[in-house]
Order: sequence, then C-alpha cells, then structure tokens
Amino acid sequence: MQAEDLLKQIAFIKEIDKVKFIQRKTKLFNSDRNENDAEHSWHLAMMTIVLAQHSNVPIDILKVLKMVLIHDVVEIDAGDTFIYDTAKSHSNTDEERVAANRIFGLLPKEQAEEFIAVWEEFELGQSNEAKFARSMDRLEPLLQNTSNNGGTWREFNVDYHKVYEKKKVIKEGSTSLWNFAENLINKSVEKGILKKV
Amino acid sequence: MQAEDLLKQIAFIKEIDKVKFIQRKTKLFNSDRNENDAEHSWHLAMMTIVLAQHSNVPIDILKVLKMVLIHDVVEIDAGDTFIYDTAKSHSNTDEERVAANRIFGLLPKEQAEEFIAVWEEFELGQSNEAKFARSMDRLEPLLQNTSNNGGTWREFNVDYHKVYEKKKVIKEGSTSLWNFAENLINKSVEKGILKKV
Repeated sequence: MQAEDLLKQIAFIKEIDKVKFIQRKTKLFNSDRNENDAEHSWHLAMMTIVLAQHSNVPIDILKVLKMVLIHDVVEIDAGDTFIYDTAKSHSNTDEERVAANRIFGLLPKEQAEEFIAVWEEFELGQSNEAKFARSMDRLEPLLQNTSNNGGTWREFNVDYHKVYEKKKVIKEGSTSLWNFAENLINKSVEKGILKKV
Repeated sequence: MQAEDLLKQIAFIKEIDKVKFIQRKTKLFNSDRNENDAEHSWHLAMMTIVLAQHSNVPIDILKVLKMVLIHDVVEIDAGDTFIYDTAKSHSNTDEERVAANRIFGLLPKEQAEEFIAVWEEFELGQSNEAKFARSMDRLEPLLQNTSNNGGTWREFNVDYHKVYEKKKVIKEGSTSLWNFAENLINKSVEKGILKKV
C-alpha cells in the first residue's frame, strides 16, 4: 500500500458525500420528507443483515452489503431515475457506466476494478447475491409506500399491474419475502391505496 | 423461521427509519447541512470497505460493517451526544442500554441477542473489529471538519488538545490512518482552523 493509494481512497470518501444530496422520489416512513440515496443505501444494508436468512439460497452477505452500499453511487453523475419512469432506462445506461468509471476510478486501480465489478454484478442481477440485493431494493419502497397511504403510487398514478411487475423480482431473491410482499400489495388494493384498473 | 419472526423483523426495519431524523452536530462535506445518523452510518460502512486493508491486524469486515451500521440505532431513544460535550457520558449509559434492549428487542430473540452483543462489543472498543470500527467513527468528522474550515471545532470552541485526545484512538485500529489523521490535525493548526492554546 503506497501513501498515494490512501490519498486516492480519501478523495473517493470525500466525493461520495454527494450521495447524501441525491433525492429519491420515495418518502421516508410516515413522512413527507424525501429519502436520499445515502439513507436508502443504509436502510438496504440494515435490511440485508436482518433478512439474509430468508434468501432462497446461501449467499455471501458481505458481497450483498457491498452491492447495496455502493449501488447508487453512480447517481452522483447520472441522477436518480424513478422506477416507474417509462421514458428512461434504469440500469447499465452508458451514462451510468461513465459515472462508475469516473467515481470508482478515484480509488487505487485494483480497488476501482473490484467496485466496478460489484456494481456491474448488481446491475446484471444474475448472481444469487445480486438477486437478494435487488429484492432489498424493491422491498424498501414497498414498505414505505404502504406506510404513507400509497406514497409514490398515488402521487404518480402507478397502478397495481405496474407495481406487481416491478416487485415480483423479489421472488428471485426470496420466496418467503415475496409471499409477504405479494400479500402487502393485495392488501393495498383492498385498502384503496393502490388502484387495480 | 416462523412467519411471526418475519413480522418482527419488518417491525424493526420500520422502526429504524427514525435514525434518518437524528441530527448530528457535524456538517456534511463543504456544506452547512447537518449530517443525520443514517447518512453517517452509511459513510462509515463505505469507509470500512474502502479502508479495511489499513487495519493493524486482519479483521472480520462483515462484523465491522454490522457495528458501524447499527452503532447509532440506540440514539432513536437516547439521542445524539456531541463527542466534545463534557457534561454527558458517551457510551454504555443506562439510557443507551435501555434503548438497545427496546429497539433490538423488536427482532426475533436470537437475532436481538446477536445485535445487542455486536453493539456492546463496539461500545466496549476492545476487540480488533471494534477498534477498527471506532477508528472509522473518529476519522469521518475529522475529514468533515477540515473540509468545512474547522466546522464544529470552531463552532463549539474545541481546541487542538481535545481533538488530539479524541482522535488518537484511531491508532488502535490503524497506525497508517492515524499517521494521516495526525498530520491532518497538525495542518489544521497551521491553517488556523484549529486553535492550539
């Protein structure tokens, strides 16, 4: 480890403070305040250590934590895209790849390559760890919207079918969490906070 | 895993959203906005995965991540205590223990016991993992204050000796990070953003 490498790591640590300024569409639980990407990433990390035992298959929890902690860092340059925004692609866009190269590229070379690989694995969503990490990413806003009387579903006029389509990937990470989530979606329709047209 | 256990885990996941509303004294990098505990915990987790290689001894990174992710959850009930507040104790107060039992106690019994044990190990600061986690907790505000022209040092009239005393525990986790930190503290005195009386 060269002294120069530590300076690169410190530069990265300072740069990612900007994640705290990126506002998501989703609001905090029982709140009108928008969540930011750092808060969101922390919550997914907490959910990972609490819920890992529900994974369909054994997973490397440390790898999942790395995924959820860094998954939104690219938004420093590329911005947050609302999951129900149909006009914009949501993953692995050229813009996000350029952002990943610039931001993770602040780190020493070997570490930059590791972080980019972890981010790409998450985006690809094929590995067991990526499937579980993505199920966390889908579950948190579901819990938030149901606590907020429909939240972004009502605010942006999102119906049951769109929600169901986006949320069903939870099943790839965890069948038991999907059973819980599916029930929550159905109950939201019954309560009238999610419309089924 | 009982269905009842999942409901307990979901209740915990909702409860800890309150961590996002706990304001720290420290401001974000190059900013006037106070940092909250969720943002702070996320940043310490990121620092852990970036800087783990600087640990004096090999450490269990997953354990350190659990420590930094949960270390401030007790503040939901006990509130944030400023590190240079001399009127109040900073760790393992009765108030924090009661908070830990209530909040982690929302989880299924075995998991509650694990989280309380991890929190206590962090507070005790004796294990290699706790030493490294605590060095992260001391390093982040040092980087923030130096980016903010003295930040809370100037705001609350904290001098070099108090800062040095609090920061030197970084050495227990990492000599190389302490060398960097000590240099940063000395440079802060030279720049006039930290007074040495």
